[in-house]
Amino acid sequence: MERLVAEIKASYRPKLKVIEWRGDRLSLLDQRLLPFEVRYLELKTVDGVADAIRNMAVRGAPAIGITAAYGMALAVKERPLEGLEQALEALRIAKEKLAKTRPTAQNLFWALDRMYKRAEAAVQNGEAKNVKDLADILGSEANKVFDEEFESEIRMGLYGVQLLQPGDVVLTQCNAGSLATGALGTATAPIYVAKHLGIDVSVIAPETRPWQQGARLTAFELRENGVKVKVIADTAVGLVISRRMVNLAIVGADRILADGTVFNKIGTLNEAVLAHEFGVPFYVAAPASTFDLVHRPEEVKIEERNPDEVRTVRTVNGNVYITMRDIDVYNPVFDATPPKYITAIITEKGIITQPLDRNIRRLLSGPQNT
Amino acid sequence: MERLVAEIKASYRPKLKVIEWRGDRLSLLDQRLLPFEVRYLELKTVDGVADAIRNMAVRGAPAIGITAAYGMALAVKERPLEGLEQALEALRIAKEKLAKTRPTAQNLFWALDRMYKRAEAAVQNGEAKNVKDLADILGSEANKVFDEEFESEIRMGLYGVQLLQPGDVVLTQCNAGSLATGALGTATAPIYVAKHLGIDVSVIAPETRPWQQGARLTAFELRENGVKVKVIADTAVGLVISRRMVNLAIVGADRILADGTVFNKIGTLNEAVLAHEFGVPFYVAAPASTFDLVHRPEEVKIEERNPDEVRTVRTVNGNVYITMRDIDVYNPVFDATPPKYITAIITEKGIITQPLDRNIRRLLSGPQNT
Repeated sequence: MERLVAEIKASYRPKLKVIEWRGDRLSLLDQRLLPFEVRYLELKTVDGVADAIRNMAVRGAPAIGITAAYGMALAVKERPLEGLEQALEALRIAKEKLAKTRPTAQNLFWALDRMYKRAEAAVQNGEAKNVKDLADILGSEANKVFDEEFESEIRMGLYGVQLLQPGDVVLTQCNAGSLATGALGTATAPIYVAKHLGIDVSVIAPETRPWQQGARLTAFELRENGVKVKVIADTAVGLVISRRMVNLAIVGADRILADGTVFNKIGTLNEAVLAHEFGVPFYVAAPASTFDLVHRPEEVKIEERNPDEVRTVRTVNGNVYITMRDIDVYNPVFDATPPKYITAIITEKGIITQPLDRNIRRLLSGPQNT
Repeated sequence: MERLVAEIKASYRPKLKVIEWRGDRLSLLDQRLLPFEVRYLELKTVDGVADAIRNMAVRGAPAIGITAAYGMALAVKERPLEGLEQALEALRIAKEKLAKTRPTAQNLFWALDRMYKRAEAAVQNGEAKNVKDLADILGSEANKVFDEEFESEIRMGLYGVQLLQPGDVVLTQCNAGSLATGALGTATAPIYVAKHLGIDVSVIAPETRPWQQGARLTAFELRENGVKVKVIADTAVGLVISRRMVNLAIVGADRILADGTVFNKIGTLNEAVLAHEFGVPFYVAAPASTFDLVHRPEEVKIEERNPDEVRTVRTVNGNVYITMRDIDVYNPVFDATPPKYITAIITEKGIITQPLDRNIRRLLSGPQNT
């Protein structure tokens, strides 16, 4: 496994770059314009990075964390600083600014803390003798944040690829892809690793209303990266599963509980139950950080969002109404898939098979399974 | 039953009129503009009626049949005719014109034949002494076509309403409503009859991509007729079923086979399997004319439509792209729901319970079950 991780890390070059550090600036794919326009933001300041996160030019918890880490590196580069004390002060201000952009993003706070602590340590232990040193150290540290995410996804991909046969058609849901993590994605990691290893697989991507991440983002990034993909309406999920037009499903997860209940983008439960009924394996791909061993299924609230998301669609011309502006709507963000419908969970530490409850505890408490 | 049918027929007045005969013209709700604009076409000529059918201002097999019947009545009214022979000639031309509008609509041909035969008989047996007589007879005959459809749907509604409890929330799919039949609809008939009888039920209508008939048409007509309705994304069907936010589902059908397999709008299978899995009763409402006792499930081809239907959405500004113009798409029109997922089928002749295969043959061959 370690040899393969290193080999892929050294050789994998996605055609579609999502986040790219260029030493003096951050190139960030503006996801608000996708799939209609591929435009990069060139960010040289903390304010620019904060705006990009706030305005959803970048989305997905891992991608936000990586972007914020580079934002911290820019804090000591964007203008001349008199000394290390002033640099640490600039970092404190940047951390505060960036933390305010998306108040519930766990990866964001984690990345900001890590960057600030690294700077503090480098100043205290004399590793950074001047602002230039500190800037180099922070650039490297942000690269490390990105690298570790990349490595974790390579591992997920290498575990997941063992579930794929040449010619397989994979059903996805929403976007748990490169666009959400900056690297290989979670649900897409096995697909990109398969592609890299020369294993021919293709994808059927349901549109995923109301936000249409499947049609807008997953279809776009897969095609850009050379993976064959077909879009279907969410209503067609039953037909493609019942006719075995897909060999397996791989989806991401927002939260996985100790019993194996998976909270993920609305529509996941539809796929899981249909796959179970028609004997199509249904996999969830998510890093160990997704597991919540504290809460029970009934304690997790299903968040509802603005009804206008259902009343409108995102188009090349922005959001447009498809029905009455005042029709009643129920717009839940995610659903809960009970463990019985899930064949296995792909993590960076290995594959968790049934019974999920026992094997989740075993894998998360045990040593890394490589 | 007969007394109730007569009572409802005499007293039921939908707020939203879809098709209305005004003696000298046909008022037809232009469904292409829904739900953004309620505008009626006032049709006085066969050409006007043919255009309305061709351009989809009216849709749904029963509604098309009724509209065409009134088109035949207009054929002998739209301009002065010299005598009965010329009137029959005008009817033959009208029949040919109207038959060409939607080449696969069975109800259309049936209605045109019925109207022409009625005219021929009235001329031959001396019932129509002049063109004025013939026009009156054809007006009455078209009214009868409409009336019989209305009566059949009242029966479906009266059988179906027995499955409803006050306070029930009904899950639908697509539009098998008043807009598709001109009267009470098929899947909506039990809901409108419940409303008429003072039984309080409400509806959850999934959007039904790619055409969005749920969000655009079902939500609109139910609200116009005073039935409480909420729209959800198609992805939310699993959640609302698993959380028992609906008490039952009622959908329409395009074709029902002898074994009980139901071909209906894409997405029906998703609902049926999810309902079965979570113990929510799943009903199909369709007239006896929907049954095809000849073909087996594997002999029915799943029609595919233009991929642009999935790449675009219908909005207040017309069809707009939501994704790449050249992305691959699979766009099947309907799916096949195996009989095991269907609780019962509501027809105008009674309710067909499990085992569907035996009970379909029994009901369709036996006397009317009232």
